[in-house]
Amino acid sequence: MLSFSERLKKKIHEYSPLCVGIDPSASVLKSCGLPDTAEGALELGRRVLSAAQYRIAIIKPQSAFFERFGSAGVRALEELTRLAHSHDVLVLVDGKRGDIESTGAAYAEGYFGRNASLHADAVTTHAYLGFDALTPFFDIAIAAGAGVFVVVRSSNPEGKPLQTARTASGETVALALANEITKRNRHYTQETPGPIGAVVGATCEDAAEIVAALPHSFILAPGVGAQGATMNDVLARMPAARGRVLPNVSRAIFANGGAPEQIAMTIRTLQDQARALL
Amino acid sequence: MLSFSERLKKKIHEYSPLCVGIDPSASVLKSCGLPDTAEGALELGRRVLSAAQYRIAIIKPQSAFFERFGSAGVRALEELTRLAHSHDVLVLVDGKRGDIESTGAAYAEGYFGRNASLHADAVTTHAYLGFDALTPFFDIAIAAGAGVFVVVRSSNPEGKPLQTARTASGETVALALANEITKRNRHYTQETPGPIGAVVGATCEDAAEIVAALPHSFILAPGVGAQGATMNDVLARMPAARGRVLPNVSRAIFANGGAPEQIAMTIRTLQDQARALL
Repeated sequence: MLSFSERLKKKIHEYSPLCVGIDPSASVLKSCGLPDTAEGALELGRRVLSAAQYRIAIIKPQSAFFERFGSAGVRALEELTRLAHSHDVLVLVDGKRGDIESTGAAYAEGYFGRNASLHADAVTTHAYLGFDALTPFFDIAIAAGAGVFVVVRSSNPEGKPLQTARTASGETVALALANEITKRNRHYTQETPGPIGAVVGATCEDAAEIVAALPHSFILAPGVGAQGATMNDVLARMPAARGRVLPNVSRAIFANGGAPEQIAMTIRTLQDQARALL
Repeated sequence: MLSFSERLKKKIHEYSPLCVGIDPSASVLKSCGLPDTAEGALELGRRVLSAAQYRIAIIKPQSAFFERFGSAGVRALEELTRLAHSHDVLVLVDGKRGDIESTGAAYAEGYFGRNASLHADAVTTHAYLGFDALTPFFDIAIAAGAGVFVVVRSSNPEGKPLQTARTASGETVALALANEITKRNRHYTQETPGPIGAVVGATCEDAAEIVAALPHSFILAPGVGAQGATMNDVLARMPAARGRVLPNVSRAIFANGGAPEQIAMTIRTLQDQARALL
């Protein structure tokens, strides 16, 4: 089995590092003429994938927008993941799950376990309950050949006070997490990038310093498009991330309209821009 | 409609403030002779509720242990929530969801929205992406008469480095969050406790100071039983929490065995002990 890193590297060289967010919010569904239901959410994902003729490295469904519909929404997410995999598109589930060790292991089982009904290639997590508490989560993901993206520095302004608080060693919370990730990646593998990636907002003024501390990680960069950063900002803000950064675009996928041909054109344009990040 | 706070106050005076955790892990299901399936997870919840003759103020199903089984597990959690509500038992879903504003709102819609298939009385959340980013989450919960428990200080030792980092004002992250919660509760209502509670580990050495900064909150105190704190420790560690603290017991519910009569006896004993916290 190829590792997540090997699969992703192959894909981003084939199709560009653009990460296509699938966020079936009420407003996106409406603008695409789809019903605000679990079926509508699944249909949105289907439309994006087929419009792009499955020529996408990785999609990032935002779990919250599926979970709005309860178990039916989770079933839709499972279905979308199966569809993506059947066309060899990688799936990063954005659920930001995190908890104490035993509970974190249970989340990982749901994403990567032998009996999981959803098989993610990678997921997002948060470390509020401690980076070391994520160990079983990492272990289970990595044993399944999957990746984990830890939220280090989020793209929204509200995240700054907590993420820039100073730990006992004087580093910011975000930088301390980045250093832990780097150490942990080296513990697991000599491969670069390793299995533990990081979410670092393209809009953050300290992004360069944080990314410099993450030499062995893929960087998921949200905030491109709707949140105000351009594709050019990404490398300007985090030059060390070249070749490893996945710019994520969610709402802006529909900026030119929600019809299949409009989505196809928007994704092609964004992929062309994103190739400059390789 | 009564607020979450009014419903909970009534219940804890009727049955004791014990919060009964429902954690259908593989090991708990095995020890109870139940299959490691979504149906087994639901059956565990049914057994606990019926063993206690529904004389419980509030249950806390841990979402991760249901999500292990994908959409079938989420369906089991929805079913368990319906069963609890049909017997007037409150349900606190422990999912620790949190994200940027629009995404957080989507999570809240899934728990509290008009079309939600799971109607929680309260949920847990984390603030890694910023306390202020939780505003839509709070708004939606409170409009639905529900409560939110923000993880402030977790009971596991791994949580300490991040939670005790110092913000720009010199407070720890945990204390800063506590102060934000208190301010926000007052913004929403003059009622005490208000709708925004806090998770504060009964094992934490700084619990007293944090709880003192939370005069208008219910305190969910995990770590009782399996994680080493006793019921007596709870008030010793956070004296200001008297009458507002919900000691949570999860794995220890099965400490005397997993048969219905053993569970019933254990819960009765724990409820008697927990009454001392009123």
